[in-house]
Amino acid sequence: MSEPDRKEITPEEAPENGKSIRNSGNTSETVNGKTKGDFDLAAVYVSDAQYNRNIFFDTTPQAIRLYLLYNHWGFQILVYAFILVDLALAIFEDPAVVPLPIWVTSVIELVCLAAFTARLVHYAKVIPRERFWKDPKNICIFGIILLSLVDMIIYGVLKASGFYAVRWSRVLRPLLLVNITEGRQLRRAFRSIRNALPQILYVFLLFMFSVLMFSLMALKLFGKRGLKTIEGRPYFTNYLEIVFDLYVLVTTANSPDIMMPAYNFSVFFAVFFITYILINTYIFMSVFLAVVYNNYKKYLKEEVRKLVRAKRHKMVRAFGVLQERKGDEAPVVSQACWNQLVRLVQPDISNAHRELLWSVSDDNNKGCIGKVAFVQLADLLNIQVIMMKSRPHPLKTWLPSLYLSSPSRLVCRMVQHRAFMYTYDLIILVNAVFIGLDEEDPLIANVEWAFLVLYLLEILLKLYSFEPRAFFSRHQFWNCLPGVHVVMFMCFVPAGGYTSRQILDIVFILRILRLIRVVDNIKRLGGQRLPFPVVYYIFAMVGMELFKGKIRFFEANSTDPDKAFCGNPLLKNSVFAKHNYCKNNFNNVISSFILLLELTVVNQCGFTAVTHISARMFFVLFHIVVVIIIINIFIAFVLEAFFVEYTVDQSNLQSSLEKKIEELELGVKQYVPDSFLSACFLPGYKTVDGLLQRMFEADLDPEDFAEDDDFDPNNPSNLNFPNPNFDSV
Amino acid sequence: MSEPDRKEITPEEAPENGKSIRNSGNTSETVNGKTKGDFDLAAVYVSDAQYNRNIFFDTTPQAIRLYLLYNHWGFQILVYAFILVDLALAIFEDPAVVPLPIWVTSVIELVCLAAFTARLVHYAKVIPRERFWKDPKNICIFGIILLSLVDMIIYGVLKASGFYAVRWSRVLRPLLLVNITEGRQLRRAFRSIRNALPQILYVFLLFMFSVLMFSLMALKLFGKRGLKTIEGRPYFTNYLEIVFDLYVLVTTANSPDIMMPAYNFSVFFAVFFITYILINTYIFMSVFLAVVYNNYKKYLKEEVRKLVRAKRHKMVRAFGVLQERKGDEAPVVSQACWNQLVRLVQPDISNAHRELLWSVSDDNNKGCIGKVAFVQLADLLNIQVIMMKSRPHPLKTWLPSLYLSSPSRLVCRMVQHRAFMYTYDLIILVNAVFIGLDEEDPLIANVEWAFLVLYLLEILLKLYSFEPRAFFSRHQFWNCLPGVHVVMFMCFVPAGGYTSRQILDIVFILRILRLIRVVDNIKRLGGQRLPFPVVYYIFAMVGMELFKGKIRFFEANSTDPDKAFCGNPLLKNSVFAKHNYCKNNFNNVISSFILLLELTVVNQCGFTAVTHISARMFFVLFHIVVVIIIINIFIAFVLEAFFVEYTVDQSNLQSSLEKKIEELELGVKQYVPDSFLSACFLPGYKTVDGLLQRMFEADLDPEDFAEDDDFDPNNPSNLNFPNPNFDSV
Repeated sequence: MSEPDRKEITPEEAPENGKSIRNSGNTSETVNGKTKGDFDLAAVYVSDAQYNRNIFFDTTPQAIRLYLLYNHWGFQILVYAFILVDLALAIFEDPAVVPLPIWVTSVIELVCLAAFTARLVHYAKVIPRERFWKDPKNICIFGIILLSLVDMIIYGVLKASGFYAVRWSRVLRPLLLVNITEGRQLRRAFRSIRNALPQILYVFLLFMFSVLMFSLMALKLFGKRGLKTIEGRPYFTNYLEIVFDLYVLVTTANSPDIMMPAYNFSVFFAVFFITYILINTYIFMSVFLAVVYNNYKKYLKEEVRKLVRAKRHKMVRAFGVLQERKGDEAPVVSQACWNQLVRLVQPDISNAHRELLWSVSDDNNKGCIGKVAFVQLADLLNIQVIMMKSRPHPLKTWLPSLYLSSPSRLVCRMVQHRAFMYTYDLIILVNAVFIGLDEEDPLIANVEWAFLVLYLLEILLKLYSFEPRAFFSRHQFWNCLPGVHVVMFMCFVPAGGYTSRQILDIVFILRILRLIRVVDNIKRLGGQRLPFPVVYYIFAMVGMELFKGKIRFFEANSTDPDKAFCGNPLLKNSVFAKHNYCKNNFNNVISSFILLLELTVVNQCGFTAVTHISARMFFVLFHIVVVIIIINIFIAFVLEAFFVEYTVDQSNLQSSLEKKIEELELGVKQYVPDSFLSACFLPGYKTVDGLLQRMFEADLDPEDFAEDDDFDPNNPSNLNFPNPNFDSV
Repeated sequence: MSEPDRKEITPEEAPENGKSIRNSGNTSETVNGKTKGDFDLAAVYVSDAQYNRNIFFDTTPQAIRLYLLYNHWGFQILVYAFILVDLALAIFEDPAVVPLPIWVTSVIELVCLAAFTARLVHYAKVIPRERFWKDPKNICIFGIILLSLVDMIIYGVLKASGFYAVRWSRVLRPLLLVNITEGRQLRRAFRSIRNALPQILYVFLLFMFSVLMFSLMALKLFGKRGLKTIEGRPYFTNYLEIVFDLYVLVTTANSPDIMMPAYNFSVFFAVFFITYILINTYIFMSVFLAVVYNNYKKYLKEEVRKLVRAKRHKMVRAFGVLQERKGDEAPVVSQACWNQLVRLVQPDISNAHRELLWSVSDDNNKGCIGKVAFVQLADLLNIQVIMMKSRPHPLKTWLPSLYLSSPSRLVCRMVQHRAFMYTYDLIILVNAVFIGLDEEDPLIANVEWAFLVLYLLEILLKLYSFEPRAFFSRHQFWNCLPGVHVVMFMCFVPAGGYTSRQILDIVFILRILRLIRVVDNIKRLGGQRLPFPVVYYIFAMVGMELFKGKIRFFEANSTDPDKAFCGNPLLKNSVFAKHNYCKNNFNNVISSFILLLELTVVNQCGFTAVTHISARMFFVLFHIVVVIIIINIFIAFVLEAFFVEYTVDQSNLQSSLEKKIEELELGVKQYVPDSFLSACFLPGYKTVDGLLQRMFEADLDPEDFAEDDDFDPNNPSNLNFPNPNFDSV
């Protein structure tokens, strides 16, 4: 799911509230008159709210137990593993990277399909039957399994009898990723695309109209002049060819080649192409971005509103299960019940952490909380609080007089100061310059030793001033790098091997990456689960069927005469072969993926030469789907995230948690200050759902429990969550 | 200046208000105790407010007369004409398109410089001396004139004595466009760039850091493997070469060539390039857009706020001059004064139009207006109201019984219906398809006649149902096209000449353009005065000095052996020469401009082969300035304009004017309904300033007269307009 936000507190300094400790020791089945079944049900609601699950499950204890099993992380990982295996089969199936006999891949695929079926059956047991068949997701998965089986049988039979066969069901495989219960974010991405489609289509029609009209104009202007392209073909004489060439010009892939014959003929013809590029490349592409961005914002806001509302519903339902009434007062949940609930929802939570959350919820120390405070729990649980055991430094225990002396303290303060970090950032940069210089020079090789000494010094100083376990903890990954660097340097450099030197450089480069925290930022954007993999996989499958084996790659030392034209006589003297693009082919799934990534950057379609001209449709379609729609959604996401970072402060809840930590003097500590180069330009959110909620938080009323919906908190059996329209893609 | 918004009313039906007609006939020097000097002063204020001029002029009657002369449209056009001539000199100066002797260009330049000096002296007479020298704009123009003179003398002397000389002052010429009084919008564009610079610089440093680090990684990964590029040069061995190659990869210009040697060696190296493109092309470029867009919005909003505030100041000052006090009541301006003022500000305004504006301002028919209503005048004058003389159709006068019969009325209603328009749009589309088909086919040539008949029918029907003068009026340009089409068809087709057929096709294509109103939309965006021309001119001048004559273009039928390498042996066997790019050169100003436009689309830098490798700096700089900054501002403008169109309704004032027109039953008529294809996706604003104001109108308080500033409406001599920081670039 989503990686929660981080806060670091030191549990030793957390308040040792006697009462709560007693309560937390209470593991009896009944707390304040609530049975274990009540707690289980409430815990499921809270957990669903926490991870934004919208599953309509039965509320019988047995069904809840099945449901808990269904949501077990082990099963979820298993499902993803099977999907991965299913998708990876493309590596072994014809056209294969590593060929395996058909029966092996078929058996593996059967096992995967069996796993998906089992998962589907499990899901069917959790939710009521009539609900199950109403959900298009389930029908979709069922359909994919069925079609895959049919396709396997047909393919097997055809192959056995020596006919030509196509594994068409492979296109359906990535749709599993979208339709499984866990594919929420991916479904959201596809929904936002679908919602934007009508407007995109409208602009696209205008755009195509403009391209068609410019092509007509080009035909009239250039068609009868007898111009030739560099390759000697007639220039702009066939209408459909012109349309395609001008469409490719929009992607700027064939600029300026497409213009040169006309421009060489007369300077004035350049005006035609400049106008064309201005209108179609700049204005229309900007309008596409604007349309996508506008829709993205509009629909995402609506989705997040629904998501938050559903989350609150579930929390209100959990509250309804656990609430206690004292006379006429508003119903409340006692601390005992709350503790029991939190332990059930998050069994690995520490006492100190739970205490902290309670003190944020129960701000006035009443011993019980109302509905509003209770509803916050799901969000509170999503804020990661890292417990740092703040042990004293070992030296402090062993040599207290020396370690606490004023020179020693000065050293510690210096090392912990930001300036120390900046100094070493600078040293790394200078080292980078030296590496870039010619390393054969013995002087420079010796300078490397000076850097080594500096890095050693860094490690020693840090180990001296920071507690070792905290320093090397899981959350301080980058701290380990200088150590790795030094160790590798020590091991390999004396050995004198050149390869070891290169390994060393890689470690060094890893260390440099820390400076811009590129890795972190990519991880965050990756969380958006953009539909790239699904779309690429589908296009790769189709592309392989269309183009496999048409172009062959020959190793550099090959002497085959076919090498000059990539093994296909149709490519003789083509630009494609001249530029040695032969490895850009659809001969297996890996090169297909790389080729599709290249096509995303620059649309080059030498392929149409080796098949029918209508294969151009494949490239145009790919451009429309990936570049016009998906890349624009990616840009829209970056834009929006950037604006949120610049305009929205951190969430109310997060800041109230921080305030509470400060109030309780829990001493928020961050051991490694940010580098000056890492003052990162990408938002400081950690979970995608959290970011989305934060993006639109200003528009959401915290007191809005949507009582206007068909929901009655006193009747928990009414389980109509207002789901965001869940449907298959 | 800015082209005002349009509204169409029919003056015949305008109310004939007796009182105002009497007043409007009053041309005496004094009205209600206000002298001609008062009116002149007030008129200057209103006119300045209307056109957003911020000039600090003397208020003596003599200075006002000089100031009015300074603002005369004739002088403004003259200044632009001289600047245009000055800029166009690049066509005739060495390296020239049309060579002229040095003395001719020098004399022309001297004349231009004299004109600029005269304009500057005129300006110095209008505003107080100490103000004149405080304004960086004036110092800038003065400096440009001086430096141009110095450069001319040095160049002349050096050339005369046979030395090599460079006309370096030509780079300064486009700066005149920015620094003249009329260059407000251009200055605004440059200011918004300057304001965004710090943030852009910050992201740019991160971006360059990332490029440098990836280059280092590339050097380590590929440098020692002995790989070769397609051209046989060593692959990725020199650090600076790698930095440049990877920078160009960001522009996607050398993709996938740059990757192929490594990819051919091993599939895994593709990961390096894919990561690089993902981070540097997609993420960083999106962040650049986000930074530019964010700053653009922020600063533009601030500027528009200042602009509106300055406008209101000026209107309040005009109000102060003309106000009358009746006892303790708030000061007002009488209708007589107002009429006199409007006549002075806009002498060509019709009585009906003026009446309309008055009735909008004086909503309650009091005969006088207060400050709030008076201040609106500047904006009201900017809304264009087109007076359509709604004459009856001639046939109605000649043959009333026939023209008013029910079949005739039915025909008129049909023709005026939108469906008629749509039908003809469809016919044009079908005709477009036929033109695209092979026109040698006799059947298709005959079909053309059918279309001719249809177009003839269209004209006849339209002439029948619309009044001819209204139909062919200036504002209905597109209506004339079918007529031109038919006339040309009639003249040329029987003559049988093929060239005439092509002219015909051009007219037809013009007509098709109407469908998407591309021309209109470009005109609107052009109004934004993006700094493209200034930047392109400067780069063209520098490029010409650096690269002129290095590459030569040979006509297609030339047999010169140098043709194979563009006349420069350094280009032998280069991709540049092979692709026949020889006409992409800096040999004269026109080809320089076209080359720079090509570089905007795809950065190809074959030029570094013919000069020193440091010439690459020129191309990198061009990419940074034009693609990273200016293109992003362009996209930001399109995005913002799009969002405004989708979220903001038309301005309050415009709608209140429309309401008034409806109230007065003036019968707003639009003769030609919009085509279904022209339901244009670009905003419906007509003036850039108007659009900007509308963009941020929601944040502007209409009652805010900024009394908190150093302004006293009772002391008109206090003329400190809070100008938006006007400074040179």
